[in-house]
Amino acid sequence: MKQLNLDLGEKSYPIYIGQNLLNQEELLISHISGKQVMIVTDAIVAPLYLSKVKNLLSSFEVIEVILPDGEEYKILDTVNTIFTALLEVCFDRSCTLIALGGGVVGDITGFAAASYQRGVDFIQIPTTLLSQVDSSVGGKTGVNHALGKNMIGSFHQPKCVVIDVDTLDTLDDRQYSAGLAEVIKYGLLGNADFLSYLQNNIDSLMSRDKNLVIKIVHQSCMDKANIVAQDELEVGKRALLNLGHTFGHAIENTLGYGVYLHGEAVAVGMLMAVKLSALEGFITNKEVQLVKDLLQKANLPVVISSKINYQTFVNAMSVDKKVINREVRLILMEKIGQAFISNDYQQSNLEQIIKGFL
Amino acid sequence: MKQLNLDLGEKSYPIYIGQNLLNQEELLISHISGKQVMIVTDAIVAPLYLSKVKNLLSSFEVIEVILPDGEEYKILDTVNTIFTALLEVCFDRSCTLIALGGGVVGDITGFAAASYQRGVDFIQIPTTLLSQVDSSVGGKTGVNHALGKNMIGSFHQPKCVVIDVDTLDTLDDRQYSAGLAEVIKYGLLGNADFLSYLQNNIDSLMSRDKNLVIKIVHQSCMDKANIVAQDELEVGKRALLNLGHTFGHAIENTLGYGVYLHGEAVAVGMLMAVKLSALEGFITNKEVQLVKDLLQKANLPVVISSKINYQTFVNAMSVDKKVINREVRLILMEKIGQAFISNDYQQSNLEQIIKGFL
Repeated sequence: MKQLNLDLGEKSYPIYIGQNLLNQEELLISHISGKQVMIVTDAIVAPLYLSKVKNLLSSFEVIEVILPDGEEYKILDTVNTIFTALLEVCFDRSCTLIALGGGVVGDITGFAAASYQRGVDFIQIPTTLLSQVDSSVGGKTGVNHALGKNMIGSFHQPKCVVIDVDTLDTLDDRQYSAGLAEVIKYGLLGNADFLSYLQNNIDSLMSRDKNLVIKIVHQSCMDKANIVAQDELEVGKRALLNLGHTFGHAIENTLGYGVYLHGEAVAVGMLMAVKLSALEGFITNKEVQLVKDLLQKANLPVVISSKINYQTFVNAMSVDKKVINREVRLILMEKIGQAFISNDYQQSNLEQIIKGFL
Repeated sequence: MKQLNLDLGEKSYPIYIGQNLLNQEELLISHISGKQVMIVTDAIVAPLYLSKVKNLLSSFEVIEVILPDGEEYKILDTVNTIFTALLEVCFDRSCTLIALGGGVVGDITGFAAASYQRGVDFIQIPTTLLSQVDSSVGGKTGVNHALGKNMIGSFHQPKCVVIDVDTLDTLDDRQYSAGLAEVIKYGLLGNADFLSYLQNNIDSLMSRDKNLVIKIVHQSCMDKANIVAQDELEVGKRALLNLGHTFGHAIENTLGYGVYLHGEAVAVGMLMAVKLSALEGFITNKEVQLVKDLLQKANLPVVISSKINYQTFVNAMSVDKKVINREVRLILMEKIGQAFISNDYQQSNLEQIIKGFL
């Protein structure tokens, strides 16, 4: 087992990465301070791993909430369902919520924990590649609003993150590839060596070689933990982690959630950001092609499959947490392996890129 | 004008108390960092003070949300109304929310600010005595759930609190008295001198002598700021501010919100706590009588007007944020002017007190 620490002073916590972790009772329960535990999971994950996790918690008062599966349920009403379940059994401020599932379950559960009685403990047990390498680490929690993705939420750090890569055995290929999009993101935005490594090992990664999977999950979590430790509340550098996400969110929002998986939309969004960076003169077309090749080898989309109206897309982009005073700030590539946040791009270049994809 | 500082490191902020403050532009706008401002108020306060506050904000992009009046609207759906209004005009992370109104408006607005795009700035302009001396200071924000009061929320500190006591000119007598309940609370829980002062000056206070009002608001805010600075997240001493509130919340919850104003329910709740303290041998019956006299002179209720079922009341008490591992912790009086948190009272004494009031 590998262990990382996300260094945030009093709010620091460990990230455990390895195989067979869902059988290790002590690992989990050493991070639970009270007697009351709620496990939040979804209809896909519950039959696979819920009883396993419950078995670790025999000395606690445990209740469970099984959410319907899907991003469309990542809304305030679902969070309220969790509050109701907690209040029906009179769980108090000493309780711990455990998020068992993918990014949607983690985001919802984290926000419920942040807001129940003004904040209770929670633990992340991510079961998808995407949530293992991205959303379970760093304390971003929240839900979508009809008018914008992740617009409601808070920063609330978990007590620990338990990443059992064995849970990926039950993950379908499309979801696995969607997770790889966020892995590739770390290479692109700040770690050229890691990007080369991914390019050199993409075939073995696609066959899910377990040692390689542990290695890339570990590296991704390290890169993310490093950035979050420097900028927990995203006043600066943390925004780089949104590479491809302004475009990606606009794709998800205009096509409707679920048409593209989040990681798929981010893959297309990253390619758009990379192409805009080339048009702005930062990187070469050959480098763009290498990124595109890697995404394709990871079975990720590199085009938007359906027609979207240009103005609709631009409006969707403008509902983004990086917008300040009506200005859409984008994450661009200064060079491959080094991203920066920019409001200084040519509007005509942005328009050309968007129109090229719609 | 008097000025206090609530000392919370980077989150410190000033509390301004005085007359005619809603005409002082600089006071308000020096605490607004972006260009976008939303004023949240309610149907009672809007016709009285909304245009006044808007006049101070001519150099900003200002929108307003006017909520229906009443505790029954302090729910998640109302917070979502605010999110929708913010997103419809694409307000970003640099925006500031201003809560203009009583405790309900402040609590809702604060929670909306805490959760919009994972946290934006907000400012409190409390217009009731209760919100001026209590809820606007200290960063507790949140809404009610059908199964319990203030069960959903977060700690989110405002950028400043502007208390213009002239707004009390439009406050009706019942609301004014409800505010006095929280003022009396500070005396009871930690400031015997202040309690004596209130006892000696209750007649002038009831005639709303402006200098006296400023003095008691200032003292209440000082006492509260002092406690919050020591224990922002209520892991210890801050719980003392809940004197009378476990009983009070149960009264509000079982009678239905609005039958008793919050301050009225707290007044009865404080008397219950004081009587229990006497039964536990901490204070004398004569001291109980003095507290009861003061509450009555402040035109506050000292009995529960309607019949409540005992078990219903006890169940409502058990949904309280001070409950830990099924144990109802109460704030009791060690002596007059000195409260403490206790789980060590006689269950039979508690039962006797409750039954005496139902």
